[in-house]
This record gives sequence, structure tokens and C-alpha cells, in this order.
Amino acid sequence: MYRPQNLRIPGPTFVPQTVLSASARPMINHRGPEFAALLAALTRALQDFLRTQGDVLLLTASGSGGMEAAIANTLSSGDKVLVFINGAFGERFFSICKAYGVDARRIDVPLGRAVEPDLVRDELAKEKGKDAAKAVLLQHNETSTGVLNPLKEIAEVVRESGKLLIVDSVSGAGSVELMVDEWGVDVLISASQKAWGAPPGVAMVTMSEKAWKAYERSNLPKLYFDLQSYKAYLEKGATPATPAVSVVIALQESLRLMAEEGLDAILRRHRDLARATRRGLQAVNLTLFADEAHASPAVTAFRPPTRVDARNLIRVLRDDYDTIVAGGQGKLDGQLVRVGHMGFVTMTDMVAFFSSLELALRDFNQPVEPGQAIAAALRAYAEATAQPARPGAKVAPRIDTVGSRR
Amino acid sequence: MYRPQNLRIPGPTFVPQTVLSASARPMINHRGPEFAALLAALTRALQDFLRTQGDVLLLTASGSGGMEAAIANTLSSGDKVLVFINGAFGERFFSICKAYGVDARRIDVPLGRAVEPDLVRDELAKEKGKDAAKAVLLQHNETSTGVLNPLKEIAEVVRESGKLLIVDSVSGAGSVELMVDEWGVDVLISASQKAWGAPPGVAMVTMSEKAWKAYERSNLPKLYFDLQSYKAYLEKGATPATPAVSVVIALQESLRLMAEEGLDAILRRHRDLARATRRGLQAVNLTLFADEAHASPAVTAFRPPTRVDARNLIRVLRDDYDTIVAGGQGKLDGQLVRVGHMGFVTMTDMVAFFSSLELALRDFNQPVEPGQAIAAALRAYAEATAQPARPGAKVAPRIDTVGSRR
Repeated sequence: MYRPQNLRIPGPTFVPQTVLSASARPMINHRGPEFAALLAALTRALQDFLRTQGDVLLLTASGSGGMEAAIANTLSSGDKVLVFINGAFGERFFSICKAYGVDARRIDVPLGRAVEPDLVRDELAKEKGKDAAKAVLLQHNETSTGVLNPLKEIAEVVRESGKLLIVDSVSGAGSVELMVDEWGVDVLISASQKAWGAPPGVAMVTMSEKAWKAYERSNLPKLYFDLQSYKAYLEKGATPATPAVSVVIALQESLRLMAEEGLDAILRRHRDLARATRRGLQAVNLTLFADEAHASPAVTAFRPPTRVDARNLIRVLRDDYDTIVAGGQGKLDGQLVRVGHMGFVTMTDMVAFFSSLELALRDFNQPVEPGQAIAAALRAYAEATAQPARPGAKVAPRIDTVGSRR
Repeated sequence: MYRPQNLRIPGPTFVPQTVLSASARPMINHRGPEFAALLAALTRALQDFLRTQGDVLLLTASGSGGMEAAIANTLSSGDKVLVFINGAFGERFFSICKAYGVDARRIDVPLGRAVEPDLVRDELAKEKGKDAAKAVLLQHNETSTGVLNPLKEIAEVVRESGKLLIVDSVSGAGSVELMVDEWGVDVLISASQKAWGAPPGVAMVTMSEKAWKAYERSNLPKLYFDLQSYKAYLEKGATPATPAVSVVIALQESLRLMAEEGLDAILRRHRDLARATRRGLQAVNLTLFADEAHASPAVTAFRPPTRVDARNLIRVLRDDYDTIVAGGQGKLDGQLVRVGHMGFVTMTDMVAFFSSLELALRDFNQPVEPGQAIAAALRAYAEATAQPARPGAKVAPRIDTVGSRR
């Protein structure tokens, strides 16, 4: 039986049909003129989306590989850095620092809460003198908890301190406002399979002038992840080693779809769908995990009903309702369900998610009326997207449909 | 106009239609049961092809990433190693060692010649005592010159020495005989876009028991490339970071095609097509670069005619005849043309290559008769693949056709 899945994990995200088809184009020479043109166009498009005139380098790696490249290219063994941790990916930054002999001081923030600019200011105030921290590392969007850190405000604080700012925006970029140059982010990492809606395999890393100065001083070992070599090859229209050609081609097509929609519309859609998702979950008495003030536009984490193991709920959603969501990571395993709404996602996808969730909750004997979550989600979405009334016309919610797109 | 390319570079290789289609399947959860089953099946298939019971780990990276992983996981800073270099990829091994502070002694072999077992024996004889080299690094198939090093015999010599043997078989595995366990190769690297005929993005790394013991002592920094973490996740049916899902799915399909043909038939096909290619090139007075005794079954390098720059010949082949070949790397740039015949390649593909080459050579005023190279190549192929005569039947050459496969 044909059972299409509603892929609602926070990455890899749903990949549209035209992007899948692009990834299946005949293989080409990665050292030829077609690939050079593709790489140049892709780099320009990413610079536009990330609001940077600086370098954007494409690595054949997952986002974690990009995070490691960011550290290996700008820090040295024994360098002191501050790592703000409010989830599994903050832990990952810390682990990479440890693996490379970087002296990372961890500042833990309770899971579900954001890294506040005041906390960053206070911690930076302690970092004066000769052995002060050289860099600040944190997540833009912490995928493991569904928390969006207020990067703009944090970046302002870090900029004043003169320290290097290294940001994991693997699941942030493309789903929420981000101005790499204006905010002063020195190194930013994203990855193809998140809001970009392409298959996994390509990580993007931006480098500011200040980051390149740090590169000159960096003594950490790297060759595959040597960003200067990526920059030198990019100028010749190539990559140092063989790139994931089919993923790069797919990414170009997904960026084309994104450009068609426009970045502002994309960000509004993410914000509105995220809010609709939260209202739908609350309508069936589920507890949101993240602080509402810092709720992610890309992914929402919630607790399962009392006495229900999140793993069981996730399994029923998958096996009986073809709806694929994620669980908690690390110490949150079994305690959280995470539903992704980043990339090429529409209200219809979220309605489908809620229909599955309502049925699954009933299977767990929860008091849920059919349509209860859906109605609340649709109401929130309709309010958010309401158009100014035209004379003689009722205000109509703008519900995106999947239409011919897939 | 529809102008299909004859992709004859030594990787990425031609990807068959069913493999391309597989890569365009809807995205799936990289932490779900489907991916776990896929990863397990793929790992078993690769173990079969590589003739190993040991671990085969799949990284989201190019072959160069796999080479770096091999070094970072088994060596320590200051370790002495021997790197045998007969081309650009030997240089890469040396560069990685240098980047990681491994004390590599380079043994250079003239380009176009093989690393001979006696040379390895002689060099190993110098490595006695406390500060002796711990490992030997070399290429199985040196893609940059089209030389196949006699790995079986070299491995025997290295095995006697007790040293660790790290082999780049990025373009060797799947195109030529290789018995990882029987020969005693401790770490072997390959990559999806070579003889495996899948898109680039996945590197494979094998690890012997002895390699794991070396891992325990290794102090080089790694997290993204930490192979123990790949092994631990593999046991749970996953990878530590998000894998290149679509490339992994494609690779499964290409391995299915390969299993259908059978490894012996695949290796015979590579051997026969390589020989046919050499004879075709010689028939139009082109000079082969590699020592015939160690000519690669995967790629053939040749010199352009006197007073013709290889870059120009390559450009004419591409622009006028849609035939994509590679040039020389490093100091051989402009001096070599390299034609790939690895992966899903048939005699028909090579006939198409020679038809383009003959026409291009005429464009450079070379005295070439139409059919001259093709006839010689076909003759060599027919001789190699001749079937025993049946009563009443003439001996017929077995010329593969592309048929419905693409």
C-alpha cells in the first residue's frame, strides 16, 4: 500500500519533488564549467539569504562537521572560550572544543530556556586580562529543545566585547531573521537538510574578516576542513575535494523555490506555523517545553501526556499514522516529542500532523475530540495571516495548500 | 539541444538511471527503522565486496575526508610513519600527516611507476628500534597517474613487519581485486563516487582489530571523524551526525546492480576495458603514462600528441564532442589526459569515447583515420572476452551494450 510519510522531524526536512528531481540529474564533472557556475550562483544566493558579503563555504559534511570546521579554523589549543549551553548542540560545541584541546568554559542554561543577553554580558564581564576568553560559542536555534536564542541582542553584547562570535545556526538560518554582517556574526554554520529543504550532505560556513584573522593564528590541525583551501578553490569555481554534487544541485533548486517565495514571506510562514503548532498542542492539553517568549519558529518540543512515554507516542504516530516526529535527545530521551515545521512546510502539513496526533492521543485514552487541536491551530494561523478586509469580502484565512508542488 | 555527456573522468563516475532515481526517493528519518535497515544491509554488502568481516564505517565526506579519518583515528602526534608517494593522492596522505603533526617520512616513486614490494621491504628494513615507523601509508590505485600498486604483495611485506597498513583505495575498491582481511589491510578508504557508481558524499573506512588497538592509543583530535562513535551508532542502526541520506540510498541501489553482475565479472570487465583503452590509445600513437605492468583497471593516463596542450584537447573533447575527461594534477597539469573506465562502464562507452577522441585528434591535425582507435580497442576487447567456440558457431566477441540500463 502507498503510505506517504509526513516527515515532521527537525531535519532532514521534507524535500519537495522538484528538489528531489534536481538531485537525480545526471552526474557532472565537479571540476568543469557547469559545476563552477553552479557553485558561484549558489554561493551568491546563500550570501543573500544569510545577509552577508563575506565568504560562504560549502563543505561535504553534516552540520556537525561545519561546527568542527568553525572551531578548527579559528581557535588554537589552549585558547579559552565561552560555550553557552542550552541543549544537545551546545553540548556538541563543548565536546568539539574538548576534543581539540580548546579550554572551553561552559555556561549552562536550564533546558527549555534561552541564553539571555544579560547572562552573556555578565559572563563576558568576567573575561578580562591576558587569559580572557577569545570567543563565544552558542546556538542560534537549539534544535534539541525548540528554543530560539535572541541572537541579535547577544551578538550586540559580544561585538562590544571584541570577542569572536561563533554561531551554530544549523536549524536557524532560513527559518528566522538572521543578518550575519549587520549583527556581527563571525562564523555561522548551517546545513542543507534543515530550513533549506535539500537532502543532507552539505554544510555551509560563513567567515568574517575577523574570523580570517583568527584563522591566521589558529594552530588546530585540519586539512579536509581547512576553510582557506575552500576559499582558494571557490575562486577557481571548485572545492578542494570532491563535493556532494547531487546535494549541491538539489540545494540550488531549493534556493530557487525559496527565492520565489521571498525571504520575508518564508520567515512569516515559519513564525505563523510555529505559533499555530503551539496553540494546537495546548488545545489538547500538551505542555510546551520551551519558554514561549523564546519558542523556535523551526521546531516545537512538547511533553507527552502524563503516564505516556514519549517513545511510545512517537512509535504509534509513525507505525499507525505515518507521521514521523523526533524524541528528546540525551537526558530528555523519553520525555519529549519534537515536531519540526521548518523548510518547505505548509499549514496543510501541520493539519495532517494534528489529525494524526489527535488519533494517536485517543489510542492512549486521552480525552481528545476529533478536530480539537486542528481547530485551535487553524484559528491561530487564520488570525496571524488575516488579510485586511476588502469591501464586501469577509476576512479569509490564507491557508497554503500543497497544490501541484509535490 | 539534448547533448548527453559521456562522463569519463575518474570520478564522479557515470551514475545509472536507477541509481539516480533511488537518490531522488522521498526523504526519510535518519534515526528511524528504515534507515537502520538500509545502513545494516549496506554495511553487509560492502563487507562482502571488500572481503572483510571487520568494520566498515560510512562517513558523510569525500574520499579525502576518509583519508583524514584514517590518520586521525590510528596515529598520534609525533608518530613516525612511511608514506609511499607515486602521485597526487600520496601527496595528500603526506599533507594530512603534516597537518596533524605526524612525523611522515616520504618515499617518492617516479610518477607513472608503481610502488614495488621490494622498495617497501628495503624501506621497512631501515625502520627498526624504538623510534621506528608505526605505519605504512599508500595508494592502492593512484588516480592521478593511472597506476595500480601491487597491494597484495606490498601488504604481505608490511604484514611481516607488524606495522599498521593504511590504504587509500578510493578509486581501487570495486574495480580491482581486493581482499581486506586476507591481505591484512588495517584501514582502507573508498568513496561512493568511484567504482561504486553512486553520487559523491559518502566515504567508507574499514578498521581491523589492529587498527582499533591503534585507535586506543591515538591522541589526534577528532569528533566528526571519530570512528569509534560511528561504530557505536552503527550498532544502533544510525550515524553520529546526520548522514547524506540520499547518497546512502543511491549507494544501496548501485550495490544491488553490482551484486547482480557479480564481483568477478565486474573485475574482469574493468581489466578488459582498461586493456582495450590502452590498445586504442596506442593505435593513434598516443603515449601511455603508466608502466604497462602496473596499469590501472580504473583510469588510463596518456600524453597528448607532441605540441598539443592537454588542456586544449580536453576542452575540445568537452565543448565539441560532449566527452568529459580529466587532466593531469599538480605538476602534471597540461601534460596528461586521464580517461576513466571505472564503475558502470561498458565497451560501448569506450567506443563513444574513442569516436570523440578520433574526431578531436583530427581537429588538431593529427593523422588519424576514422575507426583506427575504435578498431584496435574492439579487437583487444574481443580477444580478452572471447568465448570458447561452440560447434558450428564462430567465436563471437561479447560486446556489452547499454541496453535498457540507462
